[in-house]
Amino acid sequence: MDLIGVVDTMFARYDMGGEALDALEKCPGYGTKFTTIRRTVPGFKDLAVAAKRLIELDRCVIVVALGMPGKEAVDKVCAHEASTGIMTAQLMTNTPILEVFVHEDEAEDPAVLAEVFKNRSRDHAVNAYLMIYEPEKLTARAGQGVRQGFANAGPLNT
Amino acid sequence: MDLIGVVDTMFARYDMGGEALDALEKCPGYGTKFTTIRRTVPGFKDLAVAAKRLIELDRCVIVVALGMPGKEAVDKVCAHEASTGIMTAQLMTNTPILEVFVHEDEAEDPAVLAEVFKNRSRDHAVNAYLMIYEPEKLTARAGQGVRQGFANAGPLNT
Amino acid sequence: MDLIGVVDTMFARYDMGGEALDALEKCPGYGTKFTTIRRTVPGFKDLAVAAKRLIELDRCVIVVALGMPGKEAVDKVCAHEASTGIMTAQLMTNTPILEVFVHEDEAEDPAVLAEVFKNRSRDHAVNAYLMIYEPEKLTARAGQGVRQGFANAGPLNT
Amino acid sequence: MDLIGVVDTMFARYDMGGEALDALEKCPGYGTKFTTIRRTVPGFKDLAVAAKRLIELDRCVIVVALGMPGKEAVDKVCAHEASTGIMTAQLMTNTPILEVFVHEDEAEDPAVLAEVFKNRSRDHAVNAYLMIYEPEKLTARAGQGVRQGFANAGPLNT
Amino acid sequence: MDLIGVVDTMFARYDMGGEALDALEKCPGYGTKFTTIRRTVPGFKDLAVAAKRLIELDRCVIVVALGMPGKEAVDKVCAHEASTGIMTAQLMTNTPILEVFVHEDEAEDPAVLAEVFKNRSRDHAVNAYLMIYEPEKLTARAGQGVRQGFANAGPLNT
Repeated sequence: MDLIGVVDTMFARYDMGGEALDALEKCPGYGTKFTTIRRTVPGFKDLAVAAKRLIELDRCVIVVALGMPGKEAVDKVCAHEASTGIMTAQLMTNTPILEVFVHEDEAEDPAVLAEVFKNRSRDHAVNAYLMIYEPEKLTARAGQGVRQGFANAGPLNT
Repeated sequence: MDLIGVVDTMFARYDMGGEALDALEKCPGYGTKFTTIRRTVPGFKDLAVAAKRLIELDRCVIVVALGMPGKEAVDKVCAHEASTGIMTAQLMTNTPILEVFVHEDEAEDPAVLAEVFKNRSRDHAVNAYLMIYEPEKLTARAGQGVRQGFANAGPLNT
Repeated sequence: MDLIGVVDTMFARYDMGGEALDALEKCPGYGTKFTTIRRTVPGFKDLAVAAKRLIELDRCVIVVALGMPGKEAVDKVCAHEASTGIMTAQLMTNTPILEVFVHEDEAEDPAVLAEVFKNRSRDHAVNAYLMIYEPEKLTARAGQGVRQGFANAGPLNT
Repeated sequence: MDLIGVVDTMFARYDMGGEALDALEKCPGYGTKFTTIRRTVPGFKDLAVAAKRLIELDRCVIVVALGMPGKEAVDKVCAHEASTGIMTAQLMTNTPILEVFVHEDEAEDPAVLAEVFKNRSRDHAVNAYLMIYEPEKLTARAGQGVRQGFANAGPLNT
Repeated sequence: MDLIGVVDTMFARYDMGGEALDALEKCPGYGTKFTTIRRTVPGFKDLAVAAKRLIELDRCVIVVALGMPGKEAVDKVCAHEASTGIMTAQLMTNTPILEVFVHEDEAEDPAVLAEVFKNRSRDHAVNAYLMIYEPEKLTARAGQGVRQGFANAGPLNT
């Protein structure tokens, strides 16, 4: 049975990993074609090596890496470093790692922000499923302005 | 028969991959010397590993990677990360990956922006063809201020 | 017996490595399951290769890398370079290196800053212990807004 | 016979590669100790992998990589990505690649800019020759404030 | 006999490499335990691969890499690229490369700047010696706010 990895952080202020796992459990073939494995690390700069270990040591076919960059300027730099690490981990393993970051300042209203956390975590978990098992569904939506967390932008209105 | 890869995204608001594929189909030798393969990923940060997989697993001789960075400041940082990944993927595989990015804010008028999407996607697809099969045509235009998407700048006017 | 590595710098203005070593000595299994090893380098840009050597030459199972970025703009760029190196070292070794940076300008009051130095160094040393020996304790705190050095942010208040 | 590689772009608005080739042809040993090989790519972000291929596939002993970053902010980011790639290509091949970038906004007067293009391309081509065949000439000028393209700065005037 | 490498540039406006070599010649064991080797490159972006070659081809046990970033904004970006390359070279070789950069704008008075050039080059050359032969001396100064080039900052004053 395939293994899909989920890595999240103690630093984030929402249970992103829990949402991703729940969304994956509702995908076709959960428990028969694939199951999930979770790891939690302190902060988002620890995600890359954790995801790489899930791929190389636990043989995950894809990983969803979830984190929350904070509001400060230094957090933005750290987010860049975390992203660069996730990028490199993918190239070293030839395996996709879907980065799911929700910036703490994407919305002021905590209720709105919670929705973004929930939707983006779930949407990208489903994307991970689709990339492995139904990639033609992504191609069918190429160039359609698809978003995760907020409403879709849609194709250019010409 | 050689394989030329095309990777694009659901995030972009124009069917960049479709244009690239169409331009390649009009190049000499399509269907005899080379054919094409397409992959679609969620966003442009997913392009690098997808392109690398096309090279290493599907044996593409060159890849065209198309994406649209959004308008926000964070999108610019993500574009930088995506580009860095595409750069590294090329070096790891010793194979060119032509990055075709159209920034959502390159033009305000959607009709103009659509033209940029179309022309840049097609021009770089042809560049990919030329790099493999007619590299001397690129050398003939060295230092000529050649652009893709907008008009050529031309050589320095001294 | 496992080995946990601690690397710190002469540049920092607080004995961060000493705090980390002391916190590790108070963790369960110190001296029976694991012991510690320390290296000191000139500045934080020297941490990455020192940590990698601790992993590859001394066989550390995890490393805590501690440093203090200074107040100037150039120090922020250097911190970014140091972090990128630590990130790469983790990916090359498949081994976590917990980066513990205290920025010299995080607090104006030296007494407050000293507390941040002390707490963050100790908290991350304990995190290193937990990641190896009690990882389920990190998962139990996923998405809880856990911080090191200052008070926890807590989960989103919706 | 050794091979010195020259890579340039269609994007640049001056025939930088032509100047570099011409300068190399005037160096001692051209045609007996070494000869040259040229590749042209679309833009400067394509230089790194082209240079790496010249080293690994064509066995060049050194490469001169020439490009022109444009005037816009996004061009500066692209220049940084191109440079990072050239840096990595050198480290992967253990072979120097001399990066010769002339920024389109280094001079307003096209005649002045053309001089910079010409001089910097030629000076660095000669540097490439010296690094391989007469390295002691570089050591003799260590710390002397040597420049390419504009006049030398000279050593610090104390 | 061990070999300690020194790489410097023609671009710098002070003979940094000469100072480093002189300081190393005054360290215990010069000529018996270790000797030195010097390479000069055009600019600081050429330091990384030169240092890596000193390690891999000449078998240096450590390298001191000295350069001077200029005053312009573009010089700061280049310095970042040069540093990133030096960082990567260390990780690829598992060998420390001490980066010694003096920014041309660290002091306005040329006499003061010359002192910084001299002191920082010499101090880091001694650090290289200590890291290999007397590492316990660095640990003894951990967290003491040690600087090179200007006066020490000292430990936090609480």
